[in-house]
Amino acid sequence: MMSDRVDHIGIAVNDVVEVARFYSEALGVEVSEPEFEPTEGVKIAFLPTSSGLVELLEPVNEASAIRKFLDNRGEGMHHICFEVLDIEAAMRQVVAFGAQLIDEKPRHGRGGRKLAFVHPKSAHGVLIELLELGKE
Amino acid sequence: MMSDRVDHIGIAVNDVVEVARFYSEALGVEVSEPEFEPTEGVKIAFLPTSSGLVELLEPVNEASAIRKFLDNRGEGMHHICFEVLDIEAAMRQVVAFGAQLIDEKPRHGRGGRKLAFVHPKSAHGVLIELLELGKE
Repeated sequence: MMSDRVDHIGIAVNDVVEVARFYSEALGVEVSEPEFEPTEGVKIAFLPTSSGLVELLEPVNEASAIRKFLDNRGEGMHHICFEVLDIEAAMRQVVAFGAQLIDEKPRHGRGGRKLAFVHPKSAHGVLIELLELGKE
Repeated sequence: MMSDRVDHIGIAVNDVVEVARFYSEALGVEVSEPEFEPTEGVKIAFLPTSSGLVELLEPVNEASAIRKFLDNRGEGMHHICFEVLDIEAAMRQVVAFGAQLIDEKPRHGRGGRKLAFVHPKSAHGVLIELLELGKE
């Protein structure tokens, strides 16, 4: 099996502090302090639930993919991330199936981990991130 | 804390068999055989990842909420479900915050578990399901 673990779900938001307050106060879910993630041009807060992470993503510049998503669709669920053992092998399998990747080569995310996105047009409307397992 | 666990993510699809083939063959994720769930008017297949369930939901009748979602938005991520200990207490907390519920009273889902939905307009574009822990 290529993947048997969802690493996280990403949610696009306009104001991470306001949305963190909703999850914390209306739902009673613990939310981390927002932090700046320069590789994606976003501020991120995490809902560290026991079953995995939910990320709240607020764009901090116009180049951010989250900015484009918000302009086109408004706030909402943005992507689902599957952890994979070998990103290059995972990308080859996606292409062999006939699906389209957004990234031709793996790029580097938080902590230097390698990742690539599958195009939602090839994935029945879902933006799918493939994230290589950390080495540590 | 009211909730510290995501129970599942729901994805709305036109054809559960076709989408199951995508997850299975392109991503190498195990997918269960589709089953009929009469309380929601859907066929469901599960991606039983080690970090929690992903549900693929295909409507089987016009009354299904998934049918309306597909007509309005097309295929894509539909909802996120948080497990709660006490559904009535969780619903009171949502209302006390000033957010709007779709269900005035809990309704009964698969296996008789009590659930209620928070309106996406109150939840920054995300349809949130609250699902009471099973008793077994």
